[in-house]
Amino acid sequence: MARPIITLTTDFGGNDHFVGVMKGVILEIVPDAQIVDICHSVQAFDVLDGELTISQAYSYFPNRTVHVVVVDPGVGTARRPIVASCDKYHFVAPDNGVLSLVYAREERVHVRHITAGHYFLQPVSDTFHARDIFAPVAAWLAKEVDSLKFGDEIEDYVRFSAPKPKAVDGNRLRGVVLKVDRFGNIVTNITPQDVPMLFAAQAKGFKIVVGSREITEIHRTYAEGGPGEVFGILGSMGFLEIATNRGAAAQLTGASKGNEVSIILGGGAAAGKGA
Amino acid sequence: MARPIITLTTDFGGNDHFVGVMKGVILEIVPDAQIVDICHSVQAFDVLDGELTISQAYSYFPNRTVHVVVVDPGVGTARRPIVASCDKYHFVAPDNGVLSLVYAREERVHVRHITAGHYFLQPVSDTFHARDIFAPVAAWLAKEVDSLKFGDEIEDYVRFSAPKPKAVDGNRLRGVVLKVDRFGNIVTNITPQDVPMLFAAQAKGFKIVVGSREITEIHRTYAEGGPGEVFGILGSMGFLEIATNRGAAAQLTGASKGNEVSIILGGGAAAGKGA
Amino acid sequence: MARPIITLTTDFGGNDHFVGVMKGVILEIVPDAQIVDICHSVQAFDVLDGELTISQAYSYFPNRTVHVVVVDPGVGTARRPIVASCDKYHFVAPDNGVLSLVYAREERVHVRHITAGHYFLQPVSDTFHARDIFAPVAAWLAKEVDSLKFGDEIEDYVRFSAPKPKAVDGNRLRGVVLKVDRFGNIVTNITPQDVPMLFAAQAKGFKIVVGSREITEIHRTYAEGGPGEVFGILGSMGFLEIATNRGAAAQLTGASKGNEVSIILGGGAAAGKGA
Repeated sequence: MARPIITLTTDFGGNDHFVGVMKGVILEIVPDAQIVDICHSVQAFDVLDGELTISQAYSYFPNRTVHVVVVDPGVGTARRPIVASCDKYHFVAPDNGVLSLVYAREERVHVRHITAGHYFLQPVSDTFHARDIFAPVAAWLAKEVDSLKFGDEIEDYVRFSAPKPKAVDGNRLRGVVLKVDRFGNIVTNITPQDVPMLFAAQAKGFKIVVGSREITEIHRTYAEGGPGEVFGILGSMGFLEIATNRGAAAQLTGASKGNEVSIILGGGAAAGKGA
Repeated sequence: MARPIITLTTDFGGNDHFVGVMKGVILEIVPDAQIVDICHSVQAFDVLDGELTISQAYSYFPNRTVHVVVVDPGVGTARRPIVASCDKYHFVAPDNGVLSLVYAREERVHVRHITAGHYFLQPVSDTFHARDIFAPVAAWLAKEVDSLKFGDEIEDYVRFSAPKPKAVDGNRLRGVVLKVDRFGNIVTNITPQDVPMLFAAQAKGFKIVVGSREITEIHRTYAEGGPGEVFGILGSMGFLEIATNRGAAAQLTGASKGNEVSIILGGGAAAGKGA
Repeated sequence: MARPIITLTTDFGGNDHFVGVMKGVILEIVPDAQIVDICHSVQAFDVLDGELTISQAYSYFPNRTVHVVVVDPGVGTARRPIVASCDKYHFVAPDNGVLSLVYAREERVHVRHITAGHYFLQPVSDTFHARDIFAPVAAWLAKEVDSLKFGDEIEDYVRFSAPKPKAVDGNRLRGVVLKVDRFGNIVTNITPQDVPMLFAAQAKGFKIVVGSREITEIHRTYAEGGPGEVFGILGSMGFLEIATNRGAAAQLTGASKGNEVSIILGGGAAAGKGA
């Protein structure tokens, strides 16, 4: 039988013992667990960043994987610990919206409020539920304890809408920078569905404005960019990215997370160029 | 049979091949080892930081786990490689005090000077004993080679006293900042045993001085703090922490590792407030 | 039977979902794979840094390990994905020279251009071949699919010469800084074979010039250095390193990757001292 897989996505960073402790707690319960780090550098306290990270990774894992997601500024307060179960996976997380993009992608999700304290590491602290609640519950789930046993199903779980780009007028769309990745690529919330013509072969007559730069080229690969050129590209996350070849577009444009990204099509684009 | 577990705690960081090499050496000897990273971002050369990290994590792991701890500025010198064994675990480390907090917590510890060179990766370098000595010895221990076989027991192993807070007078206690964690929380060496009243419900009439700030509130959870408020909290490590809600207290107070933390109780606290 | 081992060496860093996704893809194909992170902090886009990292680590792993190496600024272009097989290992990488130091060390290497698209994750993106090509091919190799099946053998794979130190004249050798490691040690490309006398016992009458400093001492261990002293040492990578005891030589000398390192022997050294 294959070993049960548990993934970890947190904002705990790598400088402390936090992640190691979670792994110890899990292995004490399921010694043959396969623990996989998805990411521990979610921006501190940043639920949206956690959402994005788990939403990009979870679906690549095998059936029955248990995904633990801890970005939890409300630890110890009334916010509920939950287990969310869809067709293939369980997710263990605080009920603060960090699973919103999972809810949006999965057709059937059952969410339960974890209350069965006998599965927790006792005494439960007020400041480290990843150790005391989320890790042990994930381990018991990986041991095939039925999710029913952890608590009652709830319907009023916290769920944020994904930030969608908005049409300003017929020729203008306003989006936002979701994140800057390790290479300095600027990941926007704009998809090919939002602006099909942008990703058509030989797209012309458009302008993308981000930070200090106006971008008028879309490339298919990063390496197609000329030296210092900033261009658009369909990134592997499924979004429009602003990039440069072998460099950091975020640095060249001054753009960062939360900044506005505008797309101007047709005449507006041409006129804008002279500005 | 469960796979043997080996944990790694080092100051090697993530930018080099050092940790990967240790894992290769271990897997060559025990291909089915479960290798768990506790932390590789112990501050470079900082034995106290290594002590703290392993002391917070080791006891969560299953029986028979082998813990490797390498913070080793004296690599290649006369400092001894050791295996320390307590009821449930083996520790493999340089004899430089990095296991002091383990010694303090465990009732029975047997420490051996590792001299059995036939277990080492040969030739042994002068600069990378994690690869040549600590990793292979841990792997052989995980394969259930008796710790007796690695060398003679010693009594004069290096052991530091934990830095304890000191009473300055009846109303005043002086402690120290042990570390700043990933979130900017300031971890002190002050425990509830040192100042019971501080963690009593509705504690009043005290003042905590750290960096540029005077703190007069203790909260139970991080989220109870108001915007910009700096407060005390009983952290998950068992120590008084100075924290702020969704922010970095270290930045707000200017405090960093090694700084003094003072607690003033009663009248002194009230008087101090006006200063 | 031992679990198949797959190692990962990339420039993906730890801030994103990239590495987690690779692991999911691998585990979906080989659920019992042992996935080992060698390093994900190869300098972004830096093929030489990737070469160095994998070349220092791969040979410590057990027979049949599959090593995945992704530093891939040309992702999506005509650069070929390859599988390189030597006596004990398979390597999966882009054909951009990142395996050059492996080719240099191994006697027999067979390199194949990966073209068998039915092993890929479909649809294949233009921007994330680590997910779509390298991870699944490595997983199938770990499942003992014959390397023959992935594509035809090629001879014209990209191979860089290692940067060797050059003799300027009889008394002077010019090398280069290959990297600065986590501790601030300056790793040069100069080996004991290049300048045997430098590592002889009691070496004298030489001078090493790097950054702002002239170095006239070689030590055997880091801890032999006096406070603030910058000295040479034979590092664990097999190269001359410039180091300081419990500090960062890179900071003290101002030297960084790519900088020149000169060794002056004999009279030149003595004369140089007065300058």
